[in-house]
This record gives sequence, structure tokens and C-alpha cells, in this order.
Amino acid sequence: MNRFPDLIRKYAFRDPGKMATHFEGRDFTYAQFCDRIQSMGQVLVNHGVQPGDRVAYLGQNSHWLVEMYYVPCVIGAILVPLNYRLSADEMVDVIADCTPTVLIVDRHFVDRAAALMDRCPSLEQLIFADWDTDAPGLPAGTPSYDTLVAQVGKVADDAFDDRASRSDDTMIIFYTSGTTGVPKGVMLSHANLLTNAIGSGHLYGYRETDILLLSGPLFHLGTGSRVYTAVAYGTSMVVQPRFEVEETMRMIQDRRITTMTLVPTMLQMIMDHPRFDGFDFSSIRCLTYGASPMPVALMERVIEAIPGITFCQAYGATETSPVLTVLPPADHVPGNPMIGKLGTVGKPVIYGDLRVVDENDNPVPTGQSGEVIIRGPQVMNGYWNRPKETAQAMRGGFYHTGDAGFLDEDGYLTLVGRTKEMIISGGENVYPIETENALSKHDAVAQAAVIGVPDPKWGEIVYAVVALHEGTSLSEADLIAFCRKKIANYKAPRGVTFWDGPLPLSATNKIDKKAIRTAVLATQDSGDHA
Amino acid sequence: MNRFPDLIRKYAFRDPGKMATHFEGRDFTYAQFCDRIQSMGQVLVNHGVQPGDRVAYLGQNSHWLVEMYYVPCVIGAILVPLNYRLSADEMVDVIADCTPTVLIVDRHFVDRAAALMDRCPSLEQLIFADWDTDAPGLPAGTPSYDTLVAQVGKVADDAFDDRASRSDDTMIIFYTSGTTGVPKGVMLSHANLLTNAIGSGHLYGYRETDILLLSGPLFHLGTGSRVYTAVAYGTSMVVQPRFEVEETMRMIQDRRITTMTLVPTMLQMIMDHPRFDGFDFSSIRCLTYGASPMPVALMERVIEAIPGITFCQAYGATETSPVLTVLPPADHVPGNPMIGKLGTVGKPVIYGDLRVVDENDNPVPTGQSGEVIIRGPQVMNGYWNRPKETAQAMRGGFYHTGDAGFLDEDGYLTLVGRTKEMIISGGENVYPIETENALSKHDAVAQAAVIGVPDPKWGEIVYAVVALHEGTSLSEADLIAFCRKKIANYKAPRGVTFWDGPLPLSATNKIDKKAIRTAVLATQDSGDHA
Repeated sequence: MNRFPDLIRKYAFRDPGKMATHFEGRDFTYAQFCDRIQSMGQVLVNHGVQPGDRVAYLGQNSHWLVEMYYVPCVIGAILVPLNYRLSADEMVDVIADCTPTVLIVDRHFVDRAAALMDRCPSLEQLIFADWDTDAPGLPAGTPSYDTLVAQVGKVADDAFDDRASRSDDTMIIFYTSGTTGVPKGVMLSHANLLTNAIGSGHLYGYRETDILLLSGPLFHLGTGSRVYTAVAYGTSMVVQPRFEVEETMRMIQDRRITTMTLVPTMLQMIMDHPRFDGFDFSSIRCLTYGASPMPVALMERVIEAIPGITFCQAYGATETSPVLTVLPPADHVPGNPMIGKLGTVGKPVIYGDLRVVDENDNPVPTGQSGEVIIRGPQVMNGYWNRPKETAQAMRGGFYHTGDAGFLDEDGYLTLVGRTKEMIISGGENVYPIETENALSKHDAVAQAAVIGVPDPKWGEIVYAVVALHEGTSLSEADLIAFCRKKIANYKAPRGVTFWDGPLPLSATNKIDKKAIRTAVLATQDSGDHA
Repeated sequence: MNRFPDLIRKYAFRDPGKMATHFEGRDFTYAQFCDRIQSMGQVLVNHGVQPGDRVAYLGQNSHWLVEMYYVPCVIGAILVPLNYRLSADEMVDVIADCTPTVLIVDRHFVDRAAALMDRCPSLEQLIFADWDTDAPGLPAGTPSYDTLVAQVGKVADDAFDDRASRSDDTMIIFYTSGTTGVPKGVMLSHANLLTNAIGSGHLYGYRETDILLLSGPLFHLGTGSRVYTAVAYGTSMVVQPRFEVEETMRMIQDRRITTMTLVPTMLQMIMDHPRFDGFDFSSIRCLTYGASPMPVALMERVIEAIPGITFCQAYGATETSPVLTVLPPADHVPGNPMIGKLGTVGKPVIYGDLRVVDENDNPVPTGQSGEVIIRGPQVMNGYWNRPKETAQAMRGGFYHTGDAGFLDEDGYLTLVGRTKEMIISGGENVYPIETENALSKHDAVAQAAVIGVPDPKWGEIVYAVVALHEGTSLSEADLIAFCRKKIANYKAPRGVTFWDGPLPLSATNKIDKKAIRTAVLATQDSGDHA
């Protein structure tokens, strides 16, 4: 039976003095880490938490949150890490959906937690996890995590053997940031997460001597999955409350970080930082990244600055625990014949059955784009309390990612956008990114966003919104003609809006296509564009 | 959820024309392999096999047996591969224990199967899996596997989705060859076997381009586990009915085998074969071995004969799916600083919690011998229908291997024998192998076996039985004195019997200590030894 707590106990036994977590000057060894998890399990049992119950956590990254990744599953319960960027109403919806009885909060979200305790009927107990035992605004009588743990004291290794969850039991629920409606709770089991940890860890080249920096938000599985890999490999975790470029640089240097996960834009921020040369990054062995491809120029710059460094890319989804494909370190070595694959997201992990299909779930030929679907032991148990959405996402037994991509002759996957962004114009499928790439090749174009707009003749037409470099100008006809030389006519835009200033960005710093679409459709309605 | 059938369907989709199995001139592609498994699943359903039911197989290695590794689990049932070396009575005991309803047999065991059908009340249906549809002695009306599969025809991929087993469900039962009493049925689940396949496969360096030779008996997990690894990595399997040195050499050459599993004695037989130079072994990339250490001289001889070959050792037990430790290819490279570890069985797999403990299950210090115990997702569901034996083997949540060994400073495990063979003399633990190794260093000693014999003063004394090389002679006192120079006094024998001729061997070609003990105790009773 797959059980994460057993892995923690293993390192607590084998390397009791080894650092498990470091957070703001406080170290816990694996022996302490294990003991604290067991004790906190007893605390939750004392507060009436039963197997299958949910426990919510609202806070920035900390050793408390890392511990809480394992506490509920020790007693057969389920953790729900809350995305602290959600609005109060969104958070109430999430809690109403999964009905946790206990909420744990740190000092950053005391007011929000107090409000949630009032507004959410399921919540019975608030626990405060921070350095102090009190904070302004904390409801009177709220007990402190550390005090409760100290009161319970050491708990026997096998105290919860009759409660512990089994392989297929859900141990954590991550709410995905759906763009419409209430977020859905992704239920992941021990089997899901352990398959990912064991199966993908060796592709990254994880070692037990690694010192891992956790700086991305732990309410997402992107960084969260590293908490599972860490106890699988027995690595030390350095926890940063949140990514902050200069502080991250300092931690890499001071804590001798060997590996961390980031997105290329974070790496760019580090490389571009004026104090970059003042820090020692020689401890770094491997950077794992995701969310977007690594620009070759950026990679070469990093390799020159930090000799011997390697890179590894993973493409993932919360619903798949999360890794679907890996572009391993070997494919990042300049001069390697596979270096041309840097624009891909790598090859599917062996323990998954990944396919690319059309709208009717029929597989498309190699080289042709379609939706990426996958089945395997890493695929979620489903969406919490949402059998209809689960059945829809899991139709035919495959999880449908909503990502569009194609497999090449060598089995590497290239992503081309979201299937929902796909434009169907005159029966042809167009992925906006293909058109955007063509537009970007024009010297005058600073930014480009492509959307589909309704059209009585073609169903949809490909429409471009473009920001030009300052001091340049361009006609709609010329830009369309330029595109038609680069890509198929049906992929070239049939209309262009030149945007005044930089394109609007969403909260996650991506181009906000929703705002752009609204603006374009408004001008269309007013007859501005034929 | 962990499901092997999904992996087979994956390769059937992705590489439909790739060879899955080759057996006696017949090839099946992955598409055919998958279809046959689905169809045979329907055959079993038609014969009333329900989820949880057992299906027994009695036969030499064949593509039918490889298929049957997956057929029962497709419909939620359980395979029991029978050890054809068991006596009729032993086999009846096994069948009485696990009560299968269906028995599948090949032409080599028709008479035995007919007798079992008569003697075993649980057996309702016999199926004949071989080239012909009939054989002398086959009960009249016994249907043929291939005929039944052809009659059923193609079955939809999702036909059995409501029956398929879940991660923790048992999919196969292997009976272990217990030396006393009725063999115990080891229940292994999808989660157990998939953890092993995903977790250990990359340590061996498995690739999807591998062509694997299955020549060891598939009623044991030693070779059987490769059937699971094969579908995890999508490798092709070449099936040999049984290991036969010259035929194995021919298959390696003719089928361009890249990897296979053997024991060092099999490799020795190949290297010593008079026709060795007549065969082309250049296709072999990696040999995996177990059961005993690889002698350096043998390894170097193989490397000289087959340049570029690598080796990988695994130590396993049926109860652990089976791998506990791996000595990877890198540690087999001559000149590598780790080459001194060749006498060890390598390091524990990361997903297991392996410890070495004393008689009271307390961990012993590094370097000290004790019993090897392990817990983790690869550890069996238990012994079929034997809660008492399961609880005993799994006390404290750890599987007790009964193997004695010690961990060194680098975390490598060295095996020193079976805990049951351990001799306790004057309060000191002595593992026979240590004394046997010392005895073997004497030029006159051809074979040595060490046992403990009861002694009123010491509890037990260390006693040696030795066969000398022809034409040599040696006194008991001289041999004991020789040993005392090599090992601690308490480990040296206190008495020696010089055996006339080679030491007796058991059915598995190991020195038969039981026979030796009986002989020694008989002479002791008659007052021959003080």
C-alpha cells in the first residue's frame, strides 16, 4: 500500500539528524518533522477530525504548511490548501464546496480567517500557525499550532495505523483556478502522488543530498509536488514564504540550494537583477521549470554564469499529479543533437498513456494538433462532489487537459495553446499561438494576441490585436499580407486592431485575452469593423 | 488508479505493430497482445469467473502464460501460476488453499492437470493452451485457449471497466517454495507491482527499444517481474520455454536480445560453453542478475567477450514485488571507485523503508548483521488465507525477509545468509557464510557447509562439514587453526567432518544443509564427536 507517512518515518529513522525543513531561521530534522506530523495528527483527532474529513490551510509557504501536507493523510483525512489570492467570496465558495471542519491560518490572513469562521458553517475550529501564539484580529481563544503540538507530545509511530488512508484514497484537494464559475476541487490520492514522485523524480535526477528551495506557492501542485518528491528522496527543503527575487537569490547562496523549480520569467528576473554578480550560485545543480519554454538565449546565459548547471522541463496539470511530459537535462545540453527540442515540453512519462485527439476524441496523426489527453495511475480520483464535471473531463477513461498540442516523429510534445482558444474558421482548426508567432516576426510588432470572432460566413474568423513598437506604424493590409507569407492563409488574421499602448495583462501576468475580446467585440458591435 | 491493462492498451495504440511477444516462431504485436488479453478476459467471464476469483496456470513459459499475467486482472480476477516442479500432492494442497475455478495447462502437464481436475473440488474448467487443440491424456472436451479466443473475437477496450481491479486489489498470487509445510500464497496488487516496475526499471536502464529474453520460470516473480516491467516500458518479450544453455545462446543471437535476467551460474554456463565463440552476443546491452553476487573474474571475462555490456544486480523477495535493493550498472564498471561493492546487493530502492534489526526488531548499528526488514508500497497484501502467518511476517508493519545482512557506511547491503541459519554460540551471533568463506580460502577445501549443532555449554557450536579436493588431506585441528587466523575465534568451527565426495545438493542445486545436518547429528548421537 502506498503511504507517504512511511517514507517520512524511514528518513526519521535512517537520517534522524538530517534537515527536513528550514524556514526563517528554524530548522527541523527529519526526526522532528516526523514527530511533529504525528503529534499534529493527534491534535486533529482530538478536534474530532475523522478519516475522510477535510482540513483547510490558509497561509503563505512555511514549515507549518509543509508539515500539513502530511498531517491529514496520517489520520486518513484530506488537506485543502487554499489559494490566498482568491477573493473572500471565492474562498467562501471553496469552503462551502469541500466543507472542512478545521481551518489553519498564518498571520498574513488572520482577518480573512476570522471572516471565514463567521461565514462558513462547516468550520468548527481555527488554529493559528505562526511564530507567535497570537495576532491582531485573531478570534479570542484560537489555539496555536505549536502549543497544541507541544501539549500532545510524542505520539507512537503506529498510533494511527487503523485510520491511515489506502492507496486510492484522496489525501489532498487542490482547487483549480477555473476562469469561469466556482473552482473545482481536484482529488489526488497517495497512489497518484507517489506514482508522480517515484516516476518523475529520477528524470529530474533528484538525489538525497539535494537541498531544495520551495519558493512558488504551495497551494498549487507545481511547487507542491516537490514536497512529495522531497520525502520520496529524503532531500532537505528550504521554505521561502513567497518568491521575491533578491531574497530568493540570497537564500540560494546562504542555504547552498542545489535545485529549485521556477518559471522562465522568474529566472529572467534573477539574471537581469542588478545584484546578480554579487551572489554565489555555485551550489545549484539543476533548475526545473515549467509553464513556458526556456528561451535558448536565456539558457545559454545561465550556463555561462553558473557553469555545470543543468535544466529540466516538466509539463503538468493538477489533475495529473502533475507531470505529463518531461524534457530531461540531457536534452538541455548545448550541442546535443536533441537541443532542437527545447521548444517542446518533452516526452510523455512512461507510466501514462498520452494521446492527441480531435473534437470527437479520435487520435490525430503525428504532427497534427489536437487536445492532449492522458490516462494512468497519476490521474486524479476526480473533482470533489462534481460527478458531472468529472465524467466530462474523464470521458473514455482519459483526462482531457484542454491543452492543444502535437507529437512529433520522435515522440516529443509541442503545446500550441488551449483547445478552448482554438478557432474554427471555415472548418479549419487554428491555434492562436501559430498566428501570434507569425505576427511577432514582423519588426514593428511588439505584442500580438489572436482571438476568434464570430462570423456569419466562416463560423469564426482569425482576428489579431497588435501593439506596435513606439515610433513604428503599419497598415492592416500589410500586416495580413506579411502573415500570409509566413503561414497558411486560413491561419492569417482577417482583421487587425492596433492597440494603443501595451496589451492588458491578467493577474497572472499573461496577456488578458478576455479583456481584449470584450474590447474587440464592442467595437465590432458598434460597426467599427466589417 | 494503477492499472496494468491501461499500459498495454497504450502501446497497442501507440505502437500497434511493435512486437509484444515472440514464442517458438509466433509473433504477436502489441495490438494483437492487447486484443488477445481482452478476448481471453471475456472467455473467463463466460466461464463464470468473477472479480476476486482465482485462475490457475500450469505450464512452461509461453506467450499464453505471458498473456495470462494480465488476463485475470482485466476482469478483476487473480492469476495463480503453479510451480510445475511441485509434486502432485503439493499441487493439490496449493489448489485447495486458493480454490481456483479454472485451470489452464500446456502439453507438458496434461496428465497432471487431468489428475488435478479429478482431485480438486474447486476446479470446474480446464483449458488447453498450446499449439494443438488436443494432446494425449487431455480430458475429452477440453477447449483450446486459441479456439476460445477466436470464438469470442475482438472485445471493446472498456468492456470490463466495471470489473477491473483497483490499486490495492490482488492481481496475482505466487506460492513461495517454503521448505516446511504447505507453501504460502503471496498476494500482490497492481500498486505493488507497478511501484516495482516504475521504481526499479529506470535503475536497470530499461528502454522501450529493448528486446527482453524471458528464460527463467514465469511461475516465480524473479523472471515474472520482467513481464510487468516490459509493459511499463513497452519492450518486446522473447519467451523461451525454459533455460537451456545452447538454445538460450541461439535465441540471444537470432532474436538480437538486448537484456535478460539470469543468475551468475547461468552466465558461467554460457561462458564455459564450448560453442560460446560461435555465437554473436553483440546485441546484449545489459544483464540483470540476482540470487548470488557476480564474481569479479566472471564479470571481467564477460566484458572482454562482449564489449560495452553492463550489469545490474537486484536483491528481491516475492513478498516485495520483488526488488529490495539494486546494485546499478555504474557500480559494475571496472575501475569505478564503487567496484568494491560488487560483493554487496546494492542500495535499497528509494520507495522502501529497509532496516536491519535484531531478534527483538530493534535496529542494529551500521556494519552489524541482523534481519533485513522493509515496508513500502511494494510490500505484499499478505499471505492468502493466512492471517496468522501474515501478521507474523508483517509484525510492526514491516515485512521480515528472514535474510541476514548488514548495511555499510555507504548504505550498501551485504547479505550473510538466512536468519534461520544463524548460529548463536555463547551469546554471539554467527552467520554460517562467514565461516564458510574462511574455510573456502584453504587451498585443500573444495566445498564447505557450516551448521549449528546443539551444545550443553555454548547453546550451539559452529560446526563445519568439508569436502576436500581430490588427492589432498588436512587435519581437523589444522583447519580450525587456519580459520582462527581469518575470522574471530567464536566464528571458527569447533568441530569438522570431512565428507566423502562432493557435498549433497538439494533440488535447487544448493548445498543440502538439511541432509548434512541429519548426517552430522546422527554421528554425534552415536558418540562419534565429543
